[in-house]
Amino acid sequence: MKRYGVIMAGGGGTRFWPLSRKERPKQLLNLSGKDFMINETLDRLSSTVERENMFIVTNVSQAELMKEETEGRLNKDHILAEPAARNTSACIGYAAMEILRKYGDGIMCILPSDHFVKDEEEFSRVLEAAMLAAEQTDALVTIGIEPTFPATGYGYIKSKQGSQTPIGDKNNKNYSIVEEFVEKPDEETAKNYLSKGGYLWNSGMFIWKASTILSYMEWLLPDVFQCLSEIGDAIGTVKEQVTIEKIYPVIPKISIDYGIMEKADNVLVIPGSFGWNDIGSLDMLSLMREADESGNTRYGETLCEDSRNCIIYGTDKLIAAIGLEDMIVVQTGDAVLICPRERAQEVKNIVDQLAEQGREQYL
Amino acid sequence: MKRYGVIMAGGGGTRFWPLSRKERPKQLLNLSGKDFMINETLDRLSSTVERENMFIVTNVSQAELMKEETEGRLNKDHILAEPAARNTSACIGYAAMEILRKYGDGIMCILPSDHFVKDEEEFSRVLEAAMLAAEQTDALVTIGIEPTFPATGYGYIKSKQGSQTPIGDKNNKNYSIVEEFVEKPDEETAKNYLSKGGYLWNSGMFIWKASTILSYMEWLLPDVFQCLSEIGDAIGTVKEQVTIEKIYPVIPKISIDYGIMEKADNVLVIPGSFGWNDIGSLDMLSLMREADESGNTRYGETLCEDSRNCIIYGTDKLIAAIGLEDMIVVQTGDAVLICPRERAQEVKNIVDQLAEQGREQYL
Repeated sequence: MKRYGVIMAGGGGTRFWPLSRKERPKQLLNLSGKDFMINETLDRLSSTVERENMFIVTNVSQAELMKEETEGRLNKDHILAEPAARNTSACIGYAAMEILRKYGDGIMCILPSDHFVKDEEEFSRVLEAAMLAAEQTDALVTIGIEPTFPATGYGYIKSKQGSQTPIGDKNNKNYSIVEEFVEKPDEETAKNYLSKGGYLWNSGMFIWKASTILSYMEWLLPDVFQCLSEIGDAIGTVKEQVTIEKIYPVIPKISIDYGIMEKADNVLVIPGSFGWNDIGSLDMLSLMREADESGNTRYGETLCEDSRNCIIYGTDKLIAAIGLEDMIVVQTGDAVLICPRERAQEVKNIVDQLAEQGREQYL
Repeated sequence: MKRYGVIMAGGGGTRFWPLSRKERPKQLLNLSGKDFMINETLDRLSSTVERENMFIVTNVSQAELMKEETEGRLNKDHILAEPAARNTSACIGYAAMEILRKYGDGIMCILPSDHFVKDEEEFSRVLEAAMLAAEQTDALVTIGIEPTFPATGYGYIKSKQGSQTPIGDKNNKNYSIVEEFVEKPDEETAKNYLSKGGYLWNSGMFIWKASTILSYMEWLLPDVFQCLSEIGDAIGTVKEQVTIEKIYPVIPKISIDYGIMEKADNVLVIPGSFGWNDIGSLDMLSLMREADESGNTRYGETLCEDSRNCIIYGTDKLIAAIGLEDMIVVQTGDAVLICPRERAQEVKNIVDQLAEQGREQYL
């Protein structure tokens, strides 16, 4: 069966401020020192899906820059521009409709654009197995990450005990039936999940047929499906663009997790263990390159005196640190951010405040 | 008797990096938001000494910029350029010789260029009294600051018990005979000084006749005096500049405290209490303007979230801080510095390291 890759790349990444800006969202940052996150995601997928079958769904405001920066990585026409951000159900449904109407049914492999994967070969093996499972079963397949610590920042997937089934490919992978999706837990609950076993991190990676997900939307999200159908009917006609611009902004905003995954009856999970991380905040920069002997992750011109376990990121200034521990310092363009690593999530508040105060130049 | 003001302004102020640079030393920083430190010092002195009798001694590398930035504050010819830094005995002796040979004897009021004074009126009253005492007694007069806490960063002056003598001016000031100059103490010793009483902070402000200090130099620092005499003989002749350039760099390097004050027999101290601080490190920026309601001293564009008692200084970037306490953040030009307030003295190490590493552009 035909295979498609769909990268969800519509987010602004406000937790990455000041590196990420309105004009330069997180997925278009080069954090590894090698390439933009979006390109690393496309490259990672390329061992499983042909580049000519890759798609990106992004916001219309980012589409032009996205086309430039992904030059040569995929067909420019496969960069789908959302006229408005309508959450992941709309995003995935739009891609499914586009694929189905223009290219015919196939397995969609849907990945966020901002993940870190250490072991890319194992990642490919798991993805390969997931595609096979989706083809064999007509199920909604997701990848669940084997937890390595009691994370409170991820949702969890509980798999049904004893439901483990071999996929029957050369990689010897199994799937399990999903019993339940659970919200981000508190620390005690997370510890409990780890000791009980059978809980995996919800990675936000989905694998299914385009036709399957649209059927589920028709059943579970009829209002979303109605909008998508109207768009689908216009695809390939002269009315395509105008219809998208009219309909897309009124698609109900609902996440695929809440709208479909938590309610659907045939959901499978394949466990993955490939050094995965959601690059959700600046704290994750420590994963992107090797630390110095004091545990400091350093980008750009830096000078660290008696400082430990910090993330020091300079773009065009020298950053000099004395006596810092577990801190984040990021300088780029017209802004400098300083905060403790454990408070990296709160960077979002700074962006909110700047917006409230009308300090647009910093957004 | 004629009165002269001499501002010692030769220092680089490495503890003020990155604000202070080779090309822009501390005394040429505008930290108060009103004017350069050097100009504030000149202005503060102007109620006691006429501007036409003010002098600045600075390094030749800073002399041009100093002339520009002090425009209109004093006679440009009174900015004396040292071809090399030879410590305070040379600096003061040079000024004394220049004054004596060119303008005749008089009371010199010698002030560092980087002090903070809160109560300028009281400062003027104390200075006035010191000038009178120097005139009446032919002594070496210094101003000792009434300690407000057991500081370990200043030297102390012990005054002789019962030696208090009224100066007999309208300000009702007294002088005491100095018994001893003592080095920067440890905390316990400093506490001891405060509880015993009779100890004052060594402010580095000196008041004496030009002829008196030169006599003391002839007695206590004959090698220094020999050099100064050669320079003195050339002053006003065509050989003046060439002699200074030849002799100055070989004047023995010795501080006025160590070379004269600690050894001289006729040293008087006048206690002062006018909200004095030596602006010796970035931590002192907190004195220069009012803090916000969380105790943060903020310069430039800043955004503080849950941060307390910090010094946040941005020149041309937005500085955003989350969860910082008792920290210093300074951004200017091509550099950013972050350190805890209590480690502000160590900024000097950064400058040393940059010099060692040949990163000249940041010095």
